[in-house]
Amino acid sequence: MFTDLPVELLREHRTAVQEPADLDAFWSERLAEARALAEPPEATEVDTGLTAIRTWDVRFSGWDGQRIAGWLRAPAGATGPLPAIVEYVGYGGGRGSALDNLAFAAAGYAHLMMDTRGQGSGWSGGVTPDSGGTGPEVPGVMTRGIDDPAQYYYTRFFTDAVLAVDAVRALPGVDGSRVGVTGGSQGGAGALAAGALAEDVRAVAARVPFLCDIPRSMTITDARPFHELVDYLAVHRDRVDHVLGVLARIDGAVLASRITAPLQISAALMDAIVPPSGPFAAFNAAPSTRKEILVHPYNGHEGGGPEDVAAALRLFAAELGR
Amino acid sequence: MFTDLPVELLREHRTAVQEPADLDAFWSERLAEARALAEPPEATEVDTGLTAIRTWDVRFSGWDGQRIAGWLRAPAGATGPLPAIVEYVGYGGGRGSALDNLAFAAAGYAHLMMDTRGQGSGWSGGVTPDSGGTGPEVPGVMTRGIDDPAQYYYTRFFTDAVLAVDAVRALPGVDGSRVGVTGGSQGGAGALAAGALAEDVRAVAARVPFLCDIPRSMTITDARPFHELVDYLAVHRDRVDHVLGVLARIDGAVLASRITAPLQISAALMDAIVPPSGPFAAFNAAPSTRKEILVHPYNGHEGGGPEDVAAALRLFAAELGR
Amino acid sequence: MFTDLPVELLREHRTAVQEPADLDAFWSERLAEARALAEPPEATEVDTGLTAIRTWDVRFSGWDGQRIAGWLRAPAGATGPLPAIVEYVGYGGGRGSALDNLAFAAAGYAHLMMDTRGQGSGWSGGVTPDSGGTGPEVPGVMTRGIDDPAQYYYTRFFTDAVLAVDAVRALPGVDGSRVGVTGGSQGGAGALAAGALAEDVRAVAARVPFLCDIPRSMTITDARPFHELVDYLAVHRDRVDHVLGVLARIDGAVLASRITAPLQISAALMDAIVPPSGPFAAFNAAPSTRKEILVHPYNGHEGGGPEDVAAALRLFAAELGR
Amino acid sequence: MFTDLPVELLREHRTAVQEPADLDAFWSERLAEARALAEPPEATEVDTGLTAIRTWDVRFSGWDGQRIAGWLRAPAGATGPLPAIVEYVGYGGGRGSALDNLAFAAAGYAHLMMDTRGQGSGWSGGVTPDSGGTGPEVPGVMTRGIDDPAQYYYTRFFTDAVLAVDAVRALPGVDGSRVGVTGGSQGGAGALAAGALAEDVRAVAARVPFLCDIPRSMTITDARPFHELVDYLAVHRDRVDHVLGVLARIDGAVLASRITAPLQISAALMDAIVPPSGPFAAFNAAPSTRKEILVHPYNGHEGGGPEDVAAALRLFAAELGR
Amino acid sequence: MFTDLPVELLREHRTAVQEPADLDAFWSERLAEARALAEPPEATEVDTGLTAIRTWDVRFSGWDGQRIAGWLRAPAGATGPLPAIVEYVGYGGGRGSALDNLAFAAAGYAHLMMDTRGQGSGWSGGVTPDSGGTGPEVPGVMTRGIDDPAQYYYTRFFTDAVLAVDAVRALPGVDGSRVGVTGGSQGGAGALAAGALAEDVRAVAARVPFLCDIPRSMTITDARPFHELVDYLAVHRDRVDHVLGVLARIDGAVLASRITAPLQISAALMDAIVPPSGPFAAFNAAPSTRKEILVHPYNGHEGGGPEDVAAALRLFAAELGR
Amino acid sequence: MFTDLPVELLREHRTAVQEPADLDAFWSERLAEARALAEPPEATEVDTGLTAIRTWDVRFSGWDGQRIAGWLRAPAGATGPLPAIVEYVGYGGGRGSALDNLAFAAAGYAHLMMDTRGQGSGWSGGVTPDSGGTGPEVPGVMTRGIDDPAQYYYTRFFTDAVLAVDAVRALPGVDGSRVGVTGGSQGGAGALAAGALAEDVRAVAARVPFLCDIPRSMTITDARPFHELVDYLAVHRDRVDHVLGVLARIDGAVLASRITAPLQISAALMDAIVPPSGPFAAFNAAPSTRKEILVHPYNGHEGGGPEDVAAALRLFAAELGR
Repeated sequence: MFTDLPVELLREHRTAVQEPADLDAFWSERLAEARALAEPPEATEVDTGLTAIRTWDVRFSGWDGQRIAGWLRAPAGATGPLPAIVEYVGYGGGRGSALDNLAFAAAGYAHLMMDTRGQGSGWSGGVTPDSGGTGPEVPGVMTRGIDDPAQYYYTRFFTDAVLAVDAVRALPGVDGSRVGVTGGSQGGAGALAAGALAEDVRAVAARVPFLCDIPRSMTITDARPFHELVDYLAVHRDRVDHVLGVLARIDGAVLASRITAPLQISAALMDAIVPPSGPFAAFNAAPSTRKEILVHPYNGHEGGGPEDVAAALRLFAAELGR
Repeated sequence: MFTDLPVELLREHRTAVQEPADLDAFWSERLAEARALAEPPEATEVDTGLTAIRTWDVRFSGWDGQRIAGWLRAPAGATGPLPAIVEYVGYGGGRGSALDNLAFAAAGYAHLMMDTRGQGSGWSGGVTPDSGGTGPEVPGVMTRGIDDPAQYYYTRFFTDAVLAVDAVRALPGVDGSRVGVTGGSQGGAGALAAGALAEDVRAVAARVPFLCDIPRSMTITDARPFHELVDYLAVHRDRVDHVLGVLARIDGAVLASRITAPLQISAALMDAIVPPSGPFAAFNAAPSTRKEILVHPYNGHEGGGPEDVAAALRLFAAELGR
Repeated sequence: MFTDLPVELLREHRTAVQEPADLDAFWSERLAEARALAEPPEATEVDTGLTAIRTWDVRFSGWDGQRIAGWLRAPAGATGPLPAIVEYVGYGGGRGSALDNLAFAAAGYAHLMMDTRGQGSGWSGGVTPDSGGTGPEVPGVMTRGIDDPAQYYYTRFFTDAVLAVDAVRALPGVDGSRVGVTGGSQGGAGALAAGALAEDVRAVAARVPFLCDIPRSMTITDARPFHELVDYLAVHRDRVDHVLGVLARIDGAVLASRITAPLQISAALMDAIVPPSGPFAAFNAAPSTRKEILVHPYNGHEGGGPEDVAAALRLFAAELGR
Repeated sequence: MFTDLPVELLREHRTAVQEPADLDAFWSERLAEARALAEPPEATEVDTGLTAIRTWDVRFSGWDGQRIAGWLRAPAGATGPLPAIVEYVGYGGGRGSALDNLAFAAAGYAHLMMDTRGQGSGWSGGVTPDSGGTGPEVPGVMTRGIDDPAQYYYTRFFTDAVLAVDAVRALPGVDGSRVGVTGGSQGGAGALAAGALAEDVRAVAARVPFLCDIPRSMTITDARPFHELVDYLAVHRDRVDHVLGVLARIDGAVLASRITAPLQISAALMDAIVPPSGPFAAFNAAPSTRKEILVHPYNGHEGGGPEDVAAALRLFAAELGR
Repeated sequence: MFTDLPVELLREHRTAVQEPADLDAFWSERLAEARALAEPPEATEVDTGLTAIRTWDVRFSGWDGQRIAGWLRAPAGATGPLPAIVEYVGYGGGRGSALDNLAFAAAGYAHLMMDTRGQGSGWSGGVTPDSGGTGPEVPGVMTRGIDDPAQYYYTRFFTDAVLAVDAVRALPGVDGSRVGVTGGSQGGAGALAAGALAEDVRAVAARVPFLCDIPRSMTITDARPFHELVDYLAVHRDRVDHVLGVLARIDGAVLASRITAPLQISAALMDAIVPPSGPFAAFNAAPSTRKEILVHPYNGHEGGGPEDVAAALRLFAAELGR
Repeated sequence: MFTDLPVELLREHRTAVQEPADLDAFWSERLAEARALAEPPEATEVDTGLTAIRTWDVRFSGWDGQRIAGWLRAPAGATGPLPAIVEYVGYGGGRGSALDNLAFAAAGYAHLMMDTRGQGSGWSGGVTPDSGGTGPEVPGVMTRGIDDPAQYYYTRFFTDAVLAVDAVRALPGVDGSRVGVTGGSQGGAGALAAGALAEDVRAVAARVPFLCDIPRSMTITDARPFHELVDYLAVHRDRVDHVLGVLARIDGAVLASRITAPLQISAALMDAIVPPSGPFAAFNAAPSTRKEILVHPYNGHEGGGPEDVAAALRLFAAELGR
């Protein structure tokens, strides 16, 4: 069933979250801190059994200088620098197997699939630890480190996401002037954050992005992971204002106000995990002059699935070439 | 939790299903009938946006001469005939998007992903109708046409599966002497059937294969699709012997007695959809002299996931080259 | 809980589905095609162990001339032609056991319980196959044959339903001028269709009728069988307009505009399978001058249960005699 | 899935419950107490809209002299005394609508459908109160009055069941020498109890009878209503011996040792509400020389459904005539 | 997710239930009848193993003179009469273990935890039987005795609740002029009833009180125990007006109009068992001049948990002293 | 239903886990490392509104010197050093509210309720962070830090548990020669660990202890938190031996071999979260000469509830005095 507002109202929907006064300063500090600790990325080619696609195991510096893993894939036989796509992963997963996610490289791009700190044990594997501490938390990462906005898990993750863009530009064979970002769900949130906070991203394709218009989303669904926040506040009843203040710094519907690159977002009207008012709120907040929202009326959180990927390929072909 | 016997007993487990006396005759007739009606396959190249992999939309003749769809993929720039892999799809799905399932082609094979008649509307799309009639049936295909073994849905599907091997051999650029078959779940059942019934298949890799040791499987799990059979027999209480007789003709643990090619099967000890005694029963029935079973103790029906695919790539590299 | 609009709004609710321009032509063609192929009905008396009710196993010609089964029941010792009631069955079921559904015959009517093509394996048994082909489909019949409105499953079923009225009139001992139709859920949809499309039906009693105001219903519940349509469109995202166009031809809230006979509909305010806006939309669309809606505020899909049957008996007594 | 022992072991299964030393004395007292308070039954004909079956609203004296309701049905136009069938109802239900359960009367019997004290608000309605008190109890009747075996709910209900046989013999038009008892689930338990405790019952047909081999049944299923006992003992941990002692007096696998009439029991191997070891234990305990067990391998608690009813009709035809 | 109206509308929400014309007379009669039958309370000290808190097993006369159990607790070493708190228990539970619920006594009060008639077998134990009869009922107590408002279960329970206040005043060591009442869920309903109907209660603290604005509540949640009423009316479709008339006499949002003592109510916006419009309706109906509502936005039926208890302690300290 | 072996076999059940050769050395090092970093505990009295029980907010040094919180409670007016009980909390919870868990203090003991690092946001609150890093993990703590046994979450937690015993001995008013440990579920695991690893613990009462015989437990239930391990190994298929090796160091059925103090364990035969073979394996491994197992046949994970607490009070009264 439809899980949110009628589509006519979604098209007008904007978040009620106030932008924190120090939003830009907050993120400038985070990125400056992390970049000050960054070491150059390393890429080691691996034998995957594939002949048409080459694959490197990458390590780069993310939040607090911690080394984040990723897979870099590129078409075999490529000559000359390639445009690049950085992709982020959905909640619980990691960069996955070297045999997964071949489409972007098969389409001619250098494709960096960033691993997710401390996740990578749910539906796809990963290897990256999460070295920031944790306060009292609900199982999952939604409330990890929420005592301090500078230490909050998604501050760490979004810092990783931005530094992944730095890293791909520093890898050989990449044309750093042509970089796009993408991902679905949590990965879509990462793409919005990188689109807002990294320099000169040329295109952003966020499929059913999570973490947008959070205060509303967490009250209109019982599904995880938004519900982790509810579970936390159900016990820590005195921390509501603090928690909402931290979340405002990483809300995709707030950060989207900083996206000027061409933008593609998808939303699904039967999505109970990411109710569509979140993606619409992000879309409506973005000042991008070229932007498109793909609305899937009969889908849940799978959104447009391969059709969203095909649309992203079209966007990247137009904006980055290939 | 473990869903079946202890692994020591699984390693000895054999089905109690009796091989029908006319098993070979039954299938010879089916294949002869279908081949008599077969027209040559057609392959039309499509633009998928991928540059490293070429893709053709294929139609070939299956059961009753009906045209079955598929995707043929091959690495761009291949010269000379390629070894081929025919893959079958899990229950409910179809050949999927042209952007899915790129690994076998990226590994250097001609890869035919057969569409599934009358399914292709669940987790992945398809276009192939199922033109055989239906008697009274439970939603799903498990009881479709079960009044007549020659018309039963899985007789149709396995006939398609064998003729897909014929078809891939007839396509240009394929080395018909080097063909392997693979698939997971229902697709694994298809691979076992093709391995048993098609000529000169060189390797069979069946991940968590469905439809093996059916009379046992349907009594030790409540999960669909095996449960469709239970629902049917719960109403048609007088048809038990007839139904079990039909099923004996398509049971993977019976057909496996005809597999002599190198064989790889995976089984998962926490699989509630395909309890592992079925895959083990098929494995133990196969006379293949080179055979391997991959046991995943902590997995459900996802089995070994990408690790099973990697194992299949190793098998195909050894048996078919690339 | 209440599953739909407040009852005051339900009383005003009308479907937003547009009547297809060719609605009457479409159905005239279907019925003409089927009647051209029709053979006379056959009725063979069976020994059920009952002494007060006689029972015949009936076969008559439905869509495409296919023979449809049914039970004809009549009170033992009846003399002279009886008024007749044709009843249709809910989703998944068939005509059931000869020992079920005795009330209408015990009330003095010739009662034809029509079997349902290709179902009859869920909660009650049946014997009638469904010989039309299937395209890619979701398990169940909601998307069977949906590529072509003339071949769509419910086009077939409604054609059967109308020809069942023809058939009962052709059976001995029936007064063909006094025929009513009834059924619950899918059977209620059949009754509405027969009331709209068969000639001179004298009374229509549809309990919690399914398949009314379909585009709305499928977005306000997650329950099957409406959800089969959602599952299909979730994969076949490009077929929305086509599918809605086919459904408009069989929507009970559209067809009801052709019902002029006395009409009784029931609706249940806590029905999550058939949300009550569908039955109300059908009711509000019918031009019948004598019509009654039975509203059950605290019931789910069982609706009024035996109270709806008792109300139907009162309607038939008034309109058909007994 | 199968919910209990393999069928070979079920065929040998006997309860471990010890027969209470005072079993016969206990029940003799209960019945003597109740009969001492009994008033003659009353039967008032009602207009149901049915013409082939006549129906009377009956009141008779049960446990503690309380008046129990029922429907008496008989074929219209019957002349001469009829053999009679007393039927009991499943858990939660009551005697239901006057339009339900017509088969036995339509088959030529006087059919008394006994209402269930204090239930009749679940799946079918009833009107009979339960005037015995309650101690602390779990919702439902399984633990009602369990402090005292003479006051326990099922002592009351079984006393009602036996006195229903007395009552039907006292009604006009009934041949009291030809009485059978039947019912499904809780109603099957009632039939076993009446078969064990009433005089000269001529045939007993118990479909998937509940309340047999209770101590085992309550530990091998989590389904209600057996689970009510578990919930009670989970709180009243010190009452285990007392509770099991009370239950031994009403356990169908104990009472069956007193059944000498021809006996028919059905059991379903996938029944999670009444695991089949209970019905088998009752069957194996009965000294009847003519007994039959109907085993439904692929059914749940619906058991054989109408096929069990048909079998009961055959039993009654053979033993009672019609 | 939020389970009810937006909080701004909740703050204005009032029940649509009409106060029965005879409300005061009804309750005066009930209390007069019960008090006429009352015997003095008895209290027997028990050894619980606790040294800081003394505990007595209490019996007092409730509805119809029946003896109701309770625990009286008081701090060891108390000298002089103590202010008292009477507490009622949530649905399914009883007075519990002597080791539970120590906070009020540890805070310096005489604390009477009233047992619940006929419950005490769910999440906490009890010993008190419920000796009123039952008509046809749904498992649970919501429909017990609903044929007669004077016999209805909650009439009995609320009568017990008021007489518990009488009883605590009659126990030694209690200062009868300083009595407060409290409880959560069903216990909160008991506290509202005692606050409305007992004389001179000095403070009322009702946590997420059940049984307020019942006709609305039962249509906006599917959760038990409100759903018991729906189940009953789904079968007894002709009893809606009668049942709603009985419930109006015990509805907390009606009775609250008689509460003049200082009042504290809590409500939880994600409560699916007691949707918050019920507690708000009670709050808004109360003429108390000092009243406070504690709103927990992210909690379900646990409400404020220990924070609600702490708030109650503050209320009682202010109103009763300690 | 029973969730594990028959009770006769449970009484003989021993874990198949091999004791690691370095078990004592491993733990000696962990404790020595932590004690080397320990600072004295601090205790600050808080105003809880309770008059009979005094409460202090405690901080002490645990694993890696990190400060762990706790509540210390003692009866008001105590003179002279008190025997002490250290209690640990179940999975997801923290030390809870100051108003909870009053029984041990009310029974005359100094009662230290240790907070749980990084949890305290589920069913009861806490304030203690968990400052060790995390590798890729499944939501929850079961796989946190599992790359290194010295850093594994439960190594940290058990180190905290032992140092809590050190801490309580260092607090004023405590008789350090009379200390017992207790807890339920995860808290029971903590009690077993402290009983095995802390010096001179005088009594151990572990209610339904978690984390015993882990390799078996994780394969016979699908319930969390054991299932977190399965989820992890389902993705990290190559880490099985490593993970089982880490778990062997913290398995309660291994550590119990070091418990010589009087021991009380409870087990529940219907416990699906902690199947009873785990608690029995721990019980059977303990060399204590005075040990008792409380078996609750009809309980789930609540075990004996307040009856287990009462039994613990009896044990502590016998072993520690009061």
